[in-house]
Amino acid sequence: MVMGTLERLSSLRHRMVDEGFQCFLVSRSKNVLYLTGFPEGILLLPETEDPQLLVSSLNLEEAKERAKGCQIIELKPGEKAFERVAVCLEAMKARKVYFDSLELPLAQLLKERLSSSLELKDGMGLLWNLRKVKGPEEVEKIAQACRLASLGMKAVRETLKAGVEERFLAAIAEYEMRRKGSDGTAFPTIVASGARGAMPHAVASSRVIQNGDAVVVDLGATVEGYASDMTRTFLLPGAPERAMGLLSLVTEAQERAFEGLKPGISCKEADSIARNMIVKGGYGERFIHSLGHGIGLEVHEPPSLSQQDSEILKEGFSVTVEPGIYIKGFGGFRVEDTVLITRDGARKLTFDF
Amino acid sequence: MVMGTLERLSSLRHRMVDEGFQCFLVSRSKNVLYLTGFPEGILLLPETEDPQLLVSSLNLEEAKERAKGCQIIELKPGEKAFERVAVCLEAMKARKVYFDSLELPLAQLLKERLSSSLELKDGMGLLWNLRKVKGPEEVEKIAQACRLASLGMKAVRETLKAGVEERFLAAIAEYEMRRKGSDGTAFPTIVASGARGAMPHAVASSRVIQNGDAVVVDLGATVEGYASDMTRTFLLPGAPERAMGLLSLVTEAQERAFEGLKPGISCKEADSIARNMIVKGGYGERFIHSLGHGIGLEVHEPPSLSQQDSEILKEGFSVTVEPGIYIKGFGGFRVEDTVLITRDGARKLTFDF
Repeated sequence: MVMGTLERLSSLRHRMVDEGFQCFLVSRSKNVLYLTGFPEGILLLPETEDPQLLVSSLNLEEAKERAKGCQIIELKPGEKAFERVAVCLEAMKARKVYFDSLELPLAQLLKERLSSSLELKDGMGLLWNLRKVKGPEEVEKIAQACRLASLGMKAVRETLKAGVEERFLAAIAEYEMRRKGSDGTAFPTIVASGARGAMPHAVASSRVIQNGDAVVVDLGATVEGYASDMTRTFLLPGAPERAMGLLSLVTEAQERAFEGLKPGISCKEADSIARNMIVKGGYGERFIHSLGHGIGLEVHEPPSLSQQDSEILKEGFSVTVEPGIYIKGFGGFRVEDTVLITRDGARKLTFDF
Repeated sequence: MVMGTLERLSSLRHRMVDEGFQCFLVSRSKNVLYLTGFPEGILLLPETEDPQLLVSSLNLEEAKERAKGCQIIELKPGEKAFERVAVCLEAMKARKVYFDSLELPLAQLLKERLSSSLELKDGMGLLWNLRKVKGPEEVEKIAQACRLASLGMKAVRETLKAGVEERFLAAIAEYEMRRKGSDGTAFPTIVASGARGAMPHAVASSRVIQNGDAVVVDLGATVEGYASDMTRTFLLPGAPERAMGLLSLVTEAQERAFEGLKPGISCKEADSIARNMIVKGGYGERFIHSLGHGIGLEVHEPPSLSQQDSEILKEGFSVTVEPGIYIKGFGGFRVEDTVLITRDGARKLTFDF
């Protein structure tokens, strides 16, 4: 069954009612998009009536067009959204409410307006349980975003040479992704050359690339809200032998970890495949992050492919595989693909053209 | 005095101590950037000791380099940040803590770890009081971001013609901004042509622009975290007379509102200048948003130039001025500049090349 927004709403509602809750209050934009097809507003999912989507006047027309099956409620200019949420919850006689995200002052406001005994419970886990398993329509969008990232990386490969600014490479990659159909960048593009590569999150700077550099390029596109994530490390002519060795090591670790991915193995086991190889190579201390992370409507989603996450991978999970080695004063080495867990293995969605 | 991060921290600390609080817990990325010069991590500002910045291993090296004057505390892989926050707060013997943003479950965790009588208070207003008034260094960055937006708009003007996709115009504008020095887009670029223009937030789509269209283009660049925001509405050959009339009306309303901006007038008064003109023109009902908003590290900041905000404008505020008219089935008309409130008036930071 392809899960459309109505099936997702219905599935969430069943879980909610089973637990004795009267409403799910959804305010994270990506959850609102996942459940309604429209990313703006605050969604209230009651037990039996239609879901209510509270939107500002600015978004009224678009919400009516895109959020099928929802009752659209217009917030007037100056009206505080959570005052209206309180009114809606009161009309539902809600005593137990799940939320996906709720700031303390807003929680306090709801308790004041309704009752100090109002039970507010974090239900983000229920949403992640749905969101972690990607349906065919979602896979299609992630795969498109991955194809665009791969095209962006190809443009970087063709442009990269000594004398070029990191920032220019980012501009070229982003332009290529955008004109081929990306809605934007999934995150700030990383181009980290030479010693800057030792900072895993160093965004593209005005540094001019030199011969001998290792250049870490980490980029992603977005398609209808879905993200991709891909990293390659390029060695310029004259790169020291040690750099070649380190890049071989992470490349090999990434490939072995990818080959090990399949339904039934745990996140921790996946991480261990790459980590053990890098430990054996003598750089365990320099692999300072986890092997990867879930990816979908958000760039970083559960699960975490790390020693701290014992979750079992399932068919339909979409994750990144990205071991890295970082050496202060020398550089960084990381290879990353976005990968789909299939029935009996895994498939790379990003690739080298 | 130029406010550097140390002065900002000191100013915030004074306000905090005056109110009898022992710590300010800062977790919004833009606030962390504003106060430390580095956008990652969770900041704890105690009464007398050095501020503490909790960062992941990934960001350790960069944090040490950029967050001057802070004690950098490394979170180990798998360590929950708020467990460490609780330990730090306990060591400070904190009983009253300001926060800028705090999710209910994290507030509950802190109360469980410390004391149910721990007082947690929303201090975002104190931060906005600092952030609303831009110092010379901040103005310089906003002005750079505005110059880049203006260049992006110029590229759109030179590329726009019948037969071009909305999305391609966005790609051109973003590429131009990026290669001239923008760190990214301040928000998803809006290119809304023909009837799509009636949706104020319609992002660039695959719609092909036609002769006769009005095309709303709304874009922004970013420089070291600071945003710009600029809108122009272009009429293609063959646009109906009504479209020309509506564009003249918003252009005139925008210019008059801009001329009225100066320290001492209220946000509401500023909004009224443009609104009264549009009401008089017969389209008051179709001006469905406020005149503008503060802009700085975030695209949308206080104050709101609206009927609901009676705040008085001060020298150093940076705001947008953007009246708009939206007619379902016909199109949208909006003109917007980013503007700095000066000693005795206002100065446009975005402009037509």
